[in-house]
Amino acid sequence: MRELDRSEALGLLASVSLGRIVFTEHALPAVRPVNHLVDGDDIVIRIHEVGALAALAAPVGGPGVVVAYEADAIDPDTHLGWSVVVTGYARSGCRAEDDERYAALLHPGAGPPRTCTVRIRPDLVTGFRLDTAAPRIIPICG
Amino acid sequence: MRELDRSEALGLLASVSLGRIVFTEHALPAVRPVNHLVDGDDIVIRIHEVGALAALAAPVGGPGVVVAYEADAIDPDTHLGWSVVVTGYARSGCRAEDDERYAALLHPGAGPPRTCTVRIRPDLVTGFRLDTAAPRIIPICG
Repeated sequence: MRELDRSEALGLLASVSLGRIVFTEHALPAVRPVNHLVDGDDIVIRIHEVGALAALAAPVGGPGVVVAYEADAIDPDTHLGWSVVVTGYARSGCRAEDDERYAALLHPGAGPPRTCTVRIRPDLVTGFRLDTAAPRIIPICG
Repeated sequence: MRELDRSEALGLLASVSLGRIVFTEHALPAVRPVNHLVDGDDIVIRIHEVGALAALAAPVGGPGVVVAYEADAIDPDTHLGWSVVVTGYARSGCRAEDDERYAALLHPGAGPPRTCTVRIRPDLVTGFRLDTAAPRIIPICG
């Protein structure tokens, strides 16, 4: 099991389109799968203002909300693969110009309109990769 | 996009072996991929006492720690699939008899010994399924 450096971890995150945003909702831990893209070093997701992720739509100009973001690609049988966890401030904006820039990239589709862009600035980036070069299969649990 | 009832959601959770445990670590949101099994209604994972998940190893007999647990199987291209999120108290025990019962089922492998069993009792169970019966593809984000 090899730890990933920041650059490698963000590269792997950018190689997939699905992850899980982890936040606090009514003082409880909460998590939702979302589509993402990596724009520079930032992770960008789109939300709608009244959904489960509305807690992330903090007032513009505020410090933002601390979240974690996780993505992985792990084979359930062999446990080979990787996982990346980013922790940082999520800052939101609900602007028409963001719609134009991100809507197509993030597959807005037919669901409720994603009126807000949430941008997560990675503060702490951790991750591991477990590949066939490892001498034995090591579980990812724990 | 169809919401899942509790029974269906726990059934889907039991059909996979990998999920993500969501908890609070030093007052920050944290998430780790882990192997799980569903035993009755409980979700069972194994941890080692000094790792990232040590915060879950609360004193035996205490109220436990509130966590969320998420698993999904979502096609990154079509967005078809399902996601389940469970919220509840995690209670831990570090007993030899749990080793015997769960170690083989949870693939202890060659990593650091998983000396503690964490049992999550689902309080709130939510989930959705998006399948081909839906009239259009709806993104899972937001």
